[in-house]
Amino acid sequence: MSGFDGFLIDLDGTIYRGDLLIDGAADTVRRLFREGKRVVFVSNRGNISRDMCKAKLAGMGLDVPAESLLLTSTASGMYLKERDPDSAVWVLGEQGLKDELATFGIRLAPRPEDSDWLVITLHETVTYRELNMAFRAIRSGARILATNEDRMVPTAEGDSLDVAGMIGAVCHPAGRWPDVVIGKPSEWMAQAALRTLGLPPERCLVIGDSLHSDIALAKRHGMSAALVLTGLADHGSAYGGEYKPDYVWDSIAGLNGLLEGV
Amino acid sequence: MSGFDGFLIDLDGTIYRGDLLIDGAADTVRRLFREGKRVVFVSNRGNISRDMCKAKLAGMGLDVPAESLLLTSTASGMYLKERDPDSAVWVLGEQGLKDELATFGIRLAPRPEDSDWLVITLHETVTYRELNMAFRAIRSGARILATNEDRMVPTAEGDSLDVAGMIGAVCHPAGRWPDVVIGKPSEWMAQAALRTLGLPPERCLVIGDSLHSDIALAKRHGMSAALVLTGLADHGSAYGGEYKPDYVWDSIAGLNGLLEGV
Repeated sequence: MSGFDGFLIDLDGTIYRGDLLIDGAADTVRRLFREGKRVVFVSNRGNISRDMCKAKLAGMGLDVPAESLLLTSTASGMYLKERDPDSAVWVLGEQGLKDELATFGIRLAPRPEDSDWLVITLHETVTYRELNMAFRAIRSGARILATNEDRMVPTAEGDSLDVAGMIGAVCHPAGRWPDVVIGKPSEWMAQAALRTLGLPPERCLVIGDSLHSDIALAKRHGMSAALVLTGLADHGSAYGGEYKPDYVWDSIAGLNGLLEGV
Repeated sequence: MSGFDGFLIDLDGTIYRGDLLIDGAADTVRRLFREGKRVVFVSNRGNISRDMCKAKLAGMGLDVPAESLLLTSTASGMYLKERDPDSAVWVLGEQGLKDELATFGIRLAPRPEDSDWLVITLHETVTYRELNMAFRAIRSGARILATNEDRMVPTAEGDSLDVAGMIGAVCHPAGRWPDVVIGKPSEWMAQAALRTLGLPPERCLVIGDSLHSDIALAKRHGMSAALVLTGLADHGSAYGGEYKPDYVWDSIAGLNGLLEGV
Protein backbone atom coordinates (compact mmCIF):
# COMPACT_ATOMS: atom_id res chain seq x y z
CA MET A 1 0.00 0.00 0.00
CA SER A 2 3.13 2.14 -0.23
CA GLY A 3 2.29 4.23 2.79
CA PHE A 4 -0.64 6.43 1.80
CA ASP A 5 -2.75 7.17 4.85
CA GLY A 6 -4.59 10.18 3.52
CA PHE A 7 -6.53 10.69 0.32
CA LEU A 8 -7.54 13.99 -1.24
CA ILE A 9 -10.27 13.13 -3.71
CA ASP A 10 -11.72 15.43 -6.34
CA LEU A 11 -15.48 15.31 -7.05
CA ASP A 12 -16.49 16.54 -10.56
CA GLY A 13 -15.06 14.12 -13.12
CA THR A 14 -13.70 11.83 -10.40
CA ILE A 15 -16.66 10.80 -8.22
CA TYR A 16 -19.48 12.05 -10.44
CA ARG A 17 -20.11 13.73 -13.72
CA GLY A 18 -23.14 16.01 -13.48
CA ASP A 19 -25.67 13.97 -11.51
CA LEU A 20 -24.24 10.61 -12.47
CA LEU A 21 -21.99 8.67 -10.14
CA ILE A 22 -18.92 7.33 -11.93
CA ASP A 23 -18.72 3.53 -12.07
CA GLY A 24 -16.88 2.07 -9.13
CA ALA A 25 -16.48 5.39 -7.31
CA ALA A 26 -18.86 4.62 -4.44
CA ASP A 27 -17.37 1.20 -3.71
CA THR A 28 -13.84 2.55 -3.77
CA VAL A 29 -14.68 5.37 -1.38
CA ARG A 30 -16.52 3.03 0.97
CA ARG A 31 -13.50 0.74 1.02
CA LEU A 32 -11.24 3.63 2.04
CA PHE A 33 -13.51 4.52 4.95
CA ARG A 34 -13.78 0.83 5.90
CA GLU A 35 -10.02 0.43 5.96
CA GLY A 36 -9.74 3.44 8.26
CA LYS A 37 -8.03 5.71 5.76
CA ARG A 38 -8.40 9.46 6.16
CA VAL A 39 -10.32 11.03 3.31
CA VAL A 40 -11.11 14.59 2.29
CA PHE A 41 -13.05 15.47 -0.82
CA VAL A 42 -11.35 18.52 -2.27
CA SER A 43 -13.39 20.20 -4.97
CA ASN A 44 -13.00 23.47 -6.85
CA ARG A 45 -16.79 23.76 -6.81
CA GLY A 46 -17.63 27.07 -5.19
CA ASN A 47 -21.30 27.36 -6.08
CA ILE A 48 -22.61 24.85 -3.56
CA SER A 49 -22.42 24.51 0.20
CA ARG A 50 -21.15 21.47 2.08
CA ASP A 51 -24.75 20.66 3.04
CA MET A 52 -25.81 20.66 -0.60
CA CYS A 53 -22.83 18.55 -1.57
CA LYS A 54 -23.43 16.04 1.20
CA ALA A 55 -27.05 15.75 0.09
CA LYS A 56 -26.02 15.27 -3.53
CA LEU A 57 -23.62 12.47 -2.62
CA ALA A 58 -26.21 10.86 -0.33
CA GLY A 59 -28.67 10.97 -3.24
CA MET A 60 -26.17 8.91 -5.19
CA GLY A 61 -25.93 6.40 -2.35
CA LEU A 62 -22.68 7.70 -0.90
CA ASP A 63 -22.80 8.90 2.70
CA VAL A 64 -19.89 11.08 3.74
CA PRO A 65 -19.52 13.33 6.80
CA ALA A 66 -19.69 17.08 6.09
CA GLU A 67 -16.26 17.41 7.78
CA SER A 68 -14.80 15.39 4.91
CA LEU A 69 -15.87 18.01 2.39
CA LEU A 70 -13.60 20.86 1.40
CA LEU A 71 -15.16 22.91 -1.39
CA THR A 72 -13.81 26.23 -2.60
CA SER A 73 -16.92 27.85 -1.12
CA THR A 74 -15.75 26.39 2.21
CA ALA A 75 -12.14 27.44 1.72
CA SER A 76 -13.23 30.95 0.66
CA GLY A 77 -15.22 31.28 3.87
CA MET A 78 -12.17 30.12 5.87
CA TYR A 79 -9.98 32.64 4.07
CA LEU A 80 -12.24 35.62 4.66
CA LYS A 81 -12.88 34.63 8.27
CA GLU A 82 -9.15 34.42 8.92
CA ARG A 83 -7.92 37.38 6.87
CA ASP A 84 -10.76 39.92 6.80
CA PRO A 85 -13.58 38.83 9.16
CA ASP A 86 -15.33 42.21 9.30
CA SER A 87 -15.50 42.71 5.57
CA ALA A 88 -18.69 42.91 3.53
CA VAL A 89 -18.80 40.81 0.39
CA TRP A 90 -20.73 40.91 -2.86
CA VAL A 91 -21.24 37.51 -4.47
CA LEU A 92 -21.29 36.78 -8.19
CA GLY A 93 -22.53 33.24 -7.79
CA GLU A 94 -25.28 31.09 -6.46
CA GLN A 95 -27.07 30.73 -3.15
CA GLY A 96 -24.88 27.77 -2.16
CA LEU A 97 -21.85 30.05 -1.92
CA LYS A 98 -23.77 32.60 0.14
CA ASP A 99 -24.95 29.83 2.49
CA GLU A 100 -21.44 28.49 2.90
CA LEU A 101 -19.96 31.93 3.57
CA ALA A 102 -22.69 32.47 6.18
CA THR A 103 -21.47 29.42 8.11
CA PHE A 104 -18.21 31.34 8.60
CA GLY A 105 -20.03 34.49 9.70
CA ILE A 106 -19.21 36.40 6.52
CA ARG A 107 -21.54 39.34 5.94
CA LEU A 108 -23.07 40.21 2.56
CA ALA A 109 -22.95 43.85 1.42
CA PRO A 110 -26.34 45.49 0.78
CA ARG A 111 -25.15 47.02 -2.50
CA PRO A 112 -22.16 46.33 -4.82
CA GLU A 113 -20.79 49.78 -3.97
CA ASP A 114 -20.63 48.80 -0.28
CA SER A 115 -18.53 45.70 -0.73
CA ASP A 116 -14.93 45.17 0.33
CA TRP A 117 -14.69 41.96 -1.67
CA LEU A 118 -16.31 40.64 -4.77
CA VAL A 119 -16.42 36.84 -4.50
CA ILE A 120 -16.75 35.10 -7.87
CA THR A 121 -17.72 31.51 -8.52
CA LEU A 122 -19.55 29.50 -11.17
CA HIS A 123 -23.05 30.80 -11.72
CA GLU A 124 -25.16 28.60 -13.95
CA THR A 125 -28.19 30.88 -13.77
CA VAL A 126 -26.24 34.10 -14.19
CA THR A 127 -28.01 37.15 -15.63
CA TYR A 128 -26.70 40.29 -17.29
CA ARG A 129 -27.97 42.26 -14.32
CA GLU A 130 -25.87 40.17 -11.93
CA LEU A 131 -22.79 40.56 -14.12
CA ASN A 132 -23.42 44.28 -14.15
CA MET A 133 -23.70 44.45 -10.35
CA ALA A 134 -20.42 42.56 -9.97
CA PHE A 135 -18.81 44.95 -12.47
CA ARG A 136 -20.04 47.85 -10.34
CA ALA A 137 -18.46 46.27 -7.24
CA ILE A 138 -15.07 46.16 -8.98
CA ARG A 139 -15.45 49.71 -10.28
CA SER A 140 -16.21 50.80 -6.71
CA GLY A 141 -12.91 49.35 -5.57
CA ALA A 142 -13.83 45.94 -4.16
CA ARG A 143 -10.98 43.46 -4.07
CA ILE A 144 -11.65 40.31 -6.07
CA LEU A 145 -11.62 36.77 -4.70
CA ALA A 146 -12.30 33.89 -7.09
CA THR A 147 -13.21 30.51 -5.63
CA ASN A 148 -11.13 29.02 -8.46
CA GLU A 149 -10.12 29.85 -11.99
CA ASP A 150 -10.82 26.64 -13.86
CA ARG A 151 -11.68 27.11 -17.52
CA MET A 152 -13.85 24.02 -17.81
CA VAL A 153 -15.82 21.70 -15.61
CA PRO A 154 -16.86 18.21 -16.73
CA THR A 155 -20.65 17.88 -16.78
CA ALA A 156 -23.17 15.37 -18.07
CA GLU A 157 -23.42 17.51 -21.26
CA GLY A 158 -19.67 17.50 -21.84
CA ASP A 159 -16.99 19.94 -20.78
CA SER A 160 -18.65 23.21 -19.81
CA LEU A 161 -17.57 26.76 -19.11
CA ASP A 162 -16.37 27.17 -15.55
CA VAL A 163 -15.47 30.06 -13.25
CA ALA A 164 -12.99 31.54 -15.73
CA GLY A 165 -16.04 32.59 -17.75
CA MET A 166 -17.51 34.55 -14.85
CA ILE A 167 -14.11 36.07 -14.10
CA GLY A 168 -13.59 37.11 -17.72
CA ALA A 169 -17.06 38.64 -17.96
CA VAL A 170 -16.39 41.21 -15.25
CA CYS A 171 -12.59 41.41 -14.95
CA HIS A 172 -11.79 41.87 -18.64
CA PRO A 173 -14.02 44.97 -19.01
CA ALA A 174 -12.90 46.29 -15.62
CA GLY A 175 -9.25 45.78 -16.46
CA ARG A 176 -8.61 44.28 -13.02
CA TRP A 177 -8.13 40.59 -12.23
CA PRO A 178 -8.59 38.48 -9.08
CA ASP A 179 -6.45 39.43 -6.09
CA VAL A 180 -6.91 35.98 -4.59
CA VAL A 181 -7.71 32.62 -6.16
CA ILE A 182 -8.69 30.08 -3.52
CA GLY A 183 -9.03 26.80 -5.38
CA LYS A 184 -6.64 24.02 -6.31
CA PRO A 185 -3.70 24.10 -6.90
CA SER A 186 -3.26 26.89 -4.34
CA GLU A 187 -1.21 26.73 -1.16
CA TRP A 188 -4.33 27.77 0.77
CA MET A 189 -6.31 24.76 -0.49
CA ALA A 190 -3.41 22.34 0.10
CA GLN A 191 -2.92 23.51 3.69
CA ALA A 192 -6.65 23.40 4.43
CA ALA A 193 -6.87 19.84 3.14
CA LEU A 194 -3.78 18.64 5.02
CA ARG A 195 -5.07 20.27 8.19
CA THR A 196 -8.35 18.39 7.75
CA LEU A 197 -6.49 15.10 7.31
CA GLY A 198 -3.97 15.80 10.06
CA LEU A 199 -1.19 14.23 7.98
CA PRO A 200 2.05 15.40 6.38
CA PRO A 201 1.94 15.70 2.58
CA GLU A 202 4.23 12.77 1.85
CA ARG A 203 1.69 10.35 3.29
CA CYS A 204 -1.08 11.67 1.06
CA LEU A 205 -2.34 10.86 -2.43
CA VAL A 206 -4.39 13.31 -4.52
CA ILE A 207 -6.86 11.67 -6.93
CA GLY A 208 -8.43 13.81 -9.62
CA ASP A 209 -9.17 14.34 -13.30
CA SER A 210 -7.45 17.68 -13.85
CA LEU A 211 -3.76 18.12 -14.54
CA HIS A 212 -4.02 21.86 -13.89
CA SER A 213 -5.75 21.63 -10.55
CA ASP A 214 -5.43 18.14 -9.01
CA ILE A 215 -2.06 16.92 -10.23
CA ALA A 216 -0.59 20.41 -9.82
CA LEU A 217 -1.95 20.55 -6.24
CA ALA A 218 -0.17 17.32 -5.36
CA LYS A 219 3.13 18.12 -7.06
CA ARG A 220 3.42 21.68 -5.82
CA HIS A 221 2.84 20.66 -2.23
CA GLY A 222 4.78 17.41 -1.77
CA MET A 223 2.00 14.89 -2.31
CA SER A 224 1.62 11.98 -4.71
CA ALA A 225 -0.90 12.15 -7.53
CA ALA A 226 -3.21 9.83 -9.42
CA LEU A 227 -4.89 11.07 -12.61
CA VAL A 228 -8.25 9.53 -13.51
CA LEU A 229 -9.54 9.62 -17.07
CA THR A 230 -13.23 9.99 -16.25
CA GLY A 231 -13.23 13.78 -16.52
CA LEU A 232 -11.26 16.44 -18.35
CA ALA A 233 -8.01 14.58 -19.07
CA ASP A 234 -7.51 11.79 -21.58
CA HIS A 235 -4.65 9.29 -22.10
CA GLY A 236 -2.98 11.59 -24.61
CA SER A 237 -2.69 14.48 -22.21
CA ALA A 238 -1.86 12.44 -19.10
CA TYR A 239 1.88 13.05 -19.16
CA GLY A 240 1.93 16.16 -21.34
CA GLY A 241 1.55 18.78 -18.65
CA GLU A 242 3.96 20.63 -16.45
CA TYR A 243 3.15 18.28 -13.57
CA LYS A 244 3.24 14.50 -14.08
CA PRO A 245 0.97 12.12 -12.16
CA ASP A 246 2.49 9.14 -10.34
CA TYR A 247 -0.43 6.98 -11.46
CA VAL A 248 -2.89 7.12 -14.34
CA TRP A 249 -6.10 5.16 -13.94
CA ASP A 250 -9.12 4.71 -16.16
CA SER A 251 -11.21 5.63 -13.13
CA ILE A 252 -10.93 5.95 -9.37
CA ALA A 253 -11.55 2.19 -9.20
CA GLY A 254 -7.88 1.90 -10.18
CA LEU A 255 -7.16 2.70 -6.55
CA ASN A 256 -8.21 -0.85 -5.65
CA GLY A 257 -5.11 -2.24 -7.31
CA LEU A 258 -2.96 0.07 -5.22
CA LEU A 259 -4.82 -0.87 -2.02
CA GLU A 260 -4.21 -4.53 -2.81
CA GLY A 261 -0.56 -3.90 -3.52
CA VAL A 262 -0.89 -5.08 -7.13
CA MET B 1 -20.04 76.89 -40.15
CA SER B 2 -16.39 76.08 -40.81
CA GLY B 3 -17.11 73.70 -43.66
CA PHE B 4 -18.69 70.62 -42.09
CA ASP B 5 -21.04 69.03 -44.57
CA GLY B 6 -21.27 65.62 -42.99
CA PHE B 7 -22.05 64.57 -39.45
CA LEU B 8 -21.36 61.19 -37.86
CA ILE B 9 -23.54 61.10 -34.76
CA ASP B 10 -23.35 58.54 -31.98
CA LEU B 11 -26.60 57.31 -30.37
CA ASP B 12 -26.21 55.95 -26.77
CA GLY B 13 -25.18 58.82 -24.54
CA THR B 14 -25.45 61.35 -27.38
CA ILE B 15 -29.02 61.12 -28.72
CA TYR B 16 -30.57 59.03 -25.97
CA ARG B 17 -29.72 57.37 -22.71
CA GLY B 18 -31.66 54.14 -22.32
CA ASP B 19 -35.16 55.00 -23.51
CA LEU B 20 -34.87 58.71 -22.75
CA LEU B 21 -34.13 61.22 -25.46
CA ILE B 22 -31.42 63.66 -24.40
CA ASP B 23 -32.59 67.27 -24.13
CA GLY B 24 -32.18 69.19 -27.35
CA ALA B 25 -31.06 66.17 -29.37
CA ALA B 26 -34.16 65.89 -31.53
CA ASP B 27 -34.27 69.59 -32.41
CA THR B 28 -30.59 69.64 -33.29
CA VAL B 29 -30.89 66.61 -35.55
CA ARG B 30 -33.98 68.01 -37.26
CA ARG B 31 -32.11 71.22 -37.92
CA LEU B 32 -29.28 69.33 -39.61
CA PHE B 33 -31.71 67.55 -41.92
CA ARG B 34 -33.53 70.85 -42.60
CA GLU B 35 -30.32 72.59 -43.54
CA GLY B 36 -29.53 69.80 -45.99
CA LYS B 37 -26.54 68.42 -44.10
CA ARG B 38 -25.62 64.80 -44.60
CA VAL B 39 -26.08 62.75 -41.45
CA VAL B 40 -25.23 59.19 -40.46
CA PHE B 41 -25.88 57.79 -37.02
CA VAL B 42 -22.89 55.63 -36.17
CA SER B 43 -23.44 53.44 -33.14
CA ASN B 44 -21.45 50.64 -31.59
CA ARG B 45 -24.75 48.97 -30.71
CA GLY B 46 -24.67 45.53 -32.25
CA ASN B 47 -27.64 43.95 -30.51
CA ILE B 48 -30.37 45.69 -32.50
CA SER B 49 -31.24 45.90 -36.18
CA ARG B 50 -31.67 49.13 -38.15
CA ASP B 51 -35.44 48.51 -38.16
CA MET B 52 -35.48 48.28 -34.38
CA CYS B 53 -33.33 51.38 -34.05
CA LYS B 54 -35.49 53.37 -36.48
CA ALA B 55 -38.59 52.36 -34.51
CA LYS B 56 -36.93 53.33 -31.23
CA LEU B 57 -36.03 56.78 -32.55
CA ALA B 58 -39.52 57.22 -34.04
CA GLY B 59 -40.98 56.34 -30.66
CA MET B 60 -39.01 59.26 -29.26
CA GLY B 61 -40.39 61.53 -31.96
CA LEU B 62 -37.35 61.47 -34.20
CA ASP B 63 -37.90 60.15 -37.72
CA VAL B 64 -34.75 59.16 -39.53
CA PRO B 65 -34.35 57.08 -42.70
CA ALA B 66 -32.95 53.56 -42.17
CA GLU B 67 -30.18 54.43 -44.66
CA SER B 68 -28.89 56.97 -42.12
CA LEU B 69 -28.28 54.24 -39.56
CA LEU B 70 -24.96 52.47 -39.30
CA LEU B 71 -24.92 50.12 -36.31
CA THR B 72 -22.20 47.58 -35.64
CA SER B 73 -24.76 44.89 -36.39
CA THR B 74 -25.06 46.51 -39.84
CA ALA B 75 -21.32 46.88 -40.29
CA SER B 76 -20.76 43.27 -39.17
CA GLY B 77 -23.21 42.10 -41.83
CA MET B 78 -21.39 44.20 -44.44
CA TYR B 79 -18.05 42.74 -43.35
CA LEU B 80 -19.14 39.11 -43.50
CA LYS B 81 -20.97 39.64 -46.82
CA GLU B 82 -17.85 41.16 -48.36
CA ARG B 83 -15.17 38.95 -46.82
CA ASP B 84 -16.78 35.56 -46.18
CA PRO B 85 -20.26 35.43 -47.71
CA ASP B 86 -20.65 31.64 -47.59
CA SER B 87 -19.70 31.28 -43.96
CA ALA B 88 -21.99 30.02 -41.21
CA VAL B 89 -22.08 32.08 -38.04
CA TRP B 90 -22.97 31.42 -34.42
CA VAL B 91 -24.28 34.46 -32.57
CA LEU B 92 -23.68 35.30 -28.92
CA GLY B 93 -26.18 38.11 -28.84
CA GLU B 94 -29.76 39.04 -29.34
CA GLN B 95 -32.32 38.57 -32.10
CA GLY B 96 -31.67 42.07 -33.45
CA LEU B 97 -28.18 41.06 -34.53
CA LYS B 98 -29.47 37.90 -36.18
CA ASP B 99 -32.13 39.93 -38.03
CA GLU B 100 -29.57 42.45 -39.21
CA LEU B 101 -27.15 39.75 -40.40
CA ALA B 102 -30.03 38.14 -42.29
CA THR B 103 -30.54 41.34 -44.33
CA PHE B 104 -27.02 40.72 -45.67
CA GLY B 105 -27.78 37.07 -46.44
CA ILE B 106 -25.56 35.74 -43.66
CA ARG B 107 -26.43 32.19 -42.66
CA LEU B 108 -26.67 30.97 -39.06
CA ALA B 109 -24.94 27.69 -38.17
CA PRO B 110 -27.23 24.96 -36.80
CA ARG B 111 -24.78 24.13 -33.98
CA PRO B 112 -21.80 25.95 -32.44
CA GLU B 113 -19.51 23.20 -33.78
CA ASP B 114 -20.63 24.01 -37.34
CA SER B 115 -19.78 27.69 -37.25
CA ASP B 116 -16.99 29.45 -39.15
CA TRP B 117 -17.46 32.61 -37.10
CA LEU B 118 -18.64 33.38 -33.63
CA VAL B 119 -20.20 36.86 -33.69
CA ILE B 120 -20.29 38.51 -30.26
CA THR B 121 -22.33 41.51 -29.22
CA LEU B 122 -24.05 42.84 -26.11
CA HIS B 123 -26.59 40.36 -24.78
CA GLU B 124 -28.74 41.74 -22.00
CA THR B 125 -30.67 38.50 -21.55
CA VAL B 126 -27.64 36.23 -21.77
CA THR B 127 -27.74 32.84 -20.08
CA TYR B 128 -25.00 30.48 -18.95
CA ARG B 129 -26.16 28.04 -21.62
CA GLU B 130 -25.62 30.64 -24.33
CA LEU B 131 -22.18 31.50 -22.99
CA ASN B 132 -21.38 27.83 -22.99
CA MET B 133 -22.50 27.38 -26.61
CA ALA B 134 -20.33 30.33 -27.69
CA PHE B 135 -17.41 28.82 -25.77
CA ARG B 136 -17.97 25.57 -27.70
CA ALA B 137 -17.89 27.48 -31.00
CA ILE B 138 -14.46 28.89 -30.14
CA ARG B 139 -13.17 25.53 -28.96
CA SER B 140 -14.34 24.06 -32.27
CA GLY B 141 -12.19 26.57 -34.12
CA ALA B 142 -14.62 29.35 -35.10
CA ARG B 143 -12.98 32.69 -35.75
CA ILE B 144 -14.27 35.46 -33.51
CA LEU B 145 -15.86 38.70 -34.66
CA ALA B 146 -16.94 41.23 -32.04
CA THR B 147 -19.35 43.96 -33.06
CA ASN B 148 -17.35 46.24 -30.76
CA GLU B 149 -15.26 46.00 -27.64
CA ASP B 150 -16.61 48.82 -25.50
CA ARG B 151 -16.32 48.22 -21.78
CA MET B 152 -19.33 50.32 -20.80
CA VAL B 153 -22.49 51.66 -22.33
CA PRO B 154 -24.43 54.57 -20.81
CA THR B 155 -27.94 53.48 -19.83
CA ALA B 156 -30.81 54.93 -17.85
CA GLU B 157 -29.47 53.01 -14.80
CA GLY B 158 -25.96 54.42 -15.16
CA ASP B 159 -22.92 53.09 -16.96
CA SER B 160 -23.44 49.42 -17.66
CA LEU B 161 -21.35 46.49 -18.76
CA ASP B 162 -20.98 46.38 -22.54
CA VAL B 163 -19.68 43.91 -25.12
CA ALA B 164 -16.30 43.55 -23.41
CA GLY B 165 -18.17 41.56 -20.75
CA MET B 166 -19.47 39.06 -23.29
CA ILE B 167 -16.04 38.86 -24.92
CA GLY B 168 -14.32 38.26 -21.59
CA ALA B 169 -16.82 35.56 -20.57
CA VAL B 170 -15.92 33.30 -23.50
CA CYS B 171 -12.51 34.49 -24.72
CA HIS B 172 -10.72 34.54 -21.36
CA PRO B 173 -11.50 30.86 -20.61
CA ALA B 174 -10.85 29.87 -24.23
CA GLY B 175 -7.54 31.74 -24.29
CA ARG B 176 -8.35 33.18 -27.71
CA TRP B 177 -9.48 36.77 -28.41
CA PRO B 178 -11.45 38.41 -31.26
CA ASP B 179 -9.89 38.17 -34.70
CA VAL B 180 -11.95 41.14 -35.90
CA VAL B 181 -13.51 44.05 -34.01
CA ILE B 182 -15.96 45.92 -36.20
CA GLY B 183 -17.02 48.95 -34.16
CA LYS B 184 -15.66 52.44 -33.68
CA PRO B 185 -12.85 53.47 -33.83
CA SER B 186 -12.06 50.90 -36.57
CA GLU B 187 -11.06 51.67 -40.15
CA TRP B 188 -13.95 49.48 -41.29
CA MET B 189 -16.51 51.60 -39.44
CA ALA B 190 -14.95 54.90 -40.59
CA GLN B 191 -14.96 53.84 -44.24
CA ALA B 192 -18.52 52.53 -44.05
CA ALA B 193 -19.70 55.83 -42.56
CA LEU B 194 -17.83 58.00 -45.08
CA ARG B 195 -19.16 55.86 -47.93
CA THR B 196 -22.70 56.42 -46.60
CA LEU B 197 -22.11 60.18 -46.46
CA GLY B 198 -20.26 60.35 -49.76
CA LEU B 199 -17.83 62.90 -48.33
CA PRO B 200 -14.10 63.09 -47.64
CA PRO B 201 -13.16 62.91 -43.95
CA GLU B 202 -11.99 66.52 -43.66
CA ARG B 203 -15.51 67.78 -44.33
CA CYS B 204 -16.97 65.62 -41.52
CA LEU B 205 -17.55 66.06 -37.80
CA VAL B 206 -17.99 63.12 -35.41
CA ILE B 207 -20.21 63.85 -32.39
CA GLY B 208 -20.18 61.41 -29.52
CA ASP B 209 -19.74 60.78 -25.79
CA SER B 210 -16.85 58.33 -25.85
CA LEU B 211 -13.20 59.31 -26.10
CA HIS B 212 -12.23 55.71 -26.86
CA SER B 213 -14.68 55.14 -29.66
CA ASP B 214 -16.05 58.45 -31.06
CA ILE B 215 -13.17 60.85 -30.63
CA ALA B 216 -10.68 58.14 -31.58
CA LEU B 217 -12.73 57.35 -34.71
CA ALA B 218 -12.51 60.97 -35.83
CA LYS B 219 -8.85 61.51 -35.04
CA ARG B 220 -7.60 58.25 -36.48
CA HIS B 221 -9.36 58.83 -39.77
CA GLY B 222 -8.92 62.53 -40.52
CA MET B 223 -12.21 63.91 -39.18
CA SER B 224 -13.02 66.56 -36.63
CA ALA B 225 -14.53 65.59 -33.28
CA ALA B 226 -17.00 67.00 -30.77
CA LEU B 227 -17.28 65.37 -27.35
CA VAL B 228 -20.63 65.61 -25.58
CA LEU B 229 -20.90 65.20 -21.81
CA THR B 230 -24.28 63.46 -21.73
CA GLY B 231 -22.83 59.96 -21.67
CA LEU B 232 -19.63 58.30 -20.52
CA ALA B 233 -17.21 61.23 -20.49
CA ASP B 234 -17.16 64.12 -18.04
CA HIS B 235 -15.39 67.50 -18.10
CA GLY B 236 -12.44 66.06 -16.18
CA SER B 237 -11.71 63.38 -18.74
CA ALA B 238 -12.47 65.47 -21.85
CA TYR B 239 -8.86 66.24 -22.71
CA GLY B 240 -7.19 63.48 -20.77
CA GLY B 241 -7.20 60.80 -23.43
CA GLU B 242 -4.90 59.86 -26.25
CA TYR B 243 -7.18 61.64 -28.72
CA LYS B 244 -8.37 65.21 -28.04
CA PRO B 245 -11.73 66.51 -29.24
CA ASP B 246 -11.92 69.77 -31.23
CA TYR B 247 -15.06 70.75 -29.34
CA VAL B 248 -16.50 69.83 -25.94
CA TRP B 249 -20.20 70.47 -25.45
CA ASP B 250 -22.54 69.87 -22.53
CA SER B 251 -24.81 68.11 -25.03
CA ILE B 252 -25.36 67.76 -28.75
CA ALA B 253 -27.34 71.04 -28.57
CA GLY B 254 -23.90 72.67 -28.51
CA LEU B 255 -23.85 72.04 -32.24
CA ASN B 256 -26.31 74.93 -32.67
CA GLY B 257 -23.62 77.41 -31.73
CA LEU B 258 -21.38 75.97 -34.40
CA LEU B 259 -24.16 76.04 -37.01
CA GLU B 260 -24.78 79.68 -36.22
CA GLY B 261 -21.09 80.46 -36.44
CA VAL B 262 -20.97 81.60 -32.78
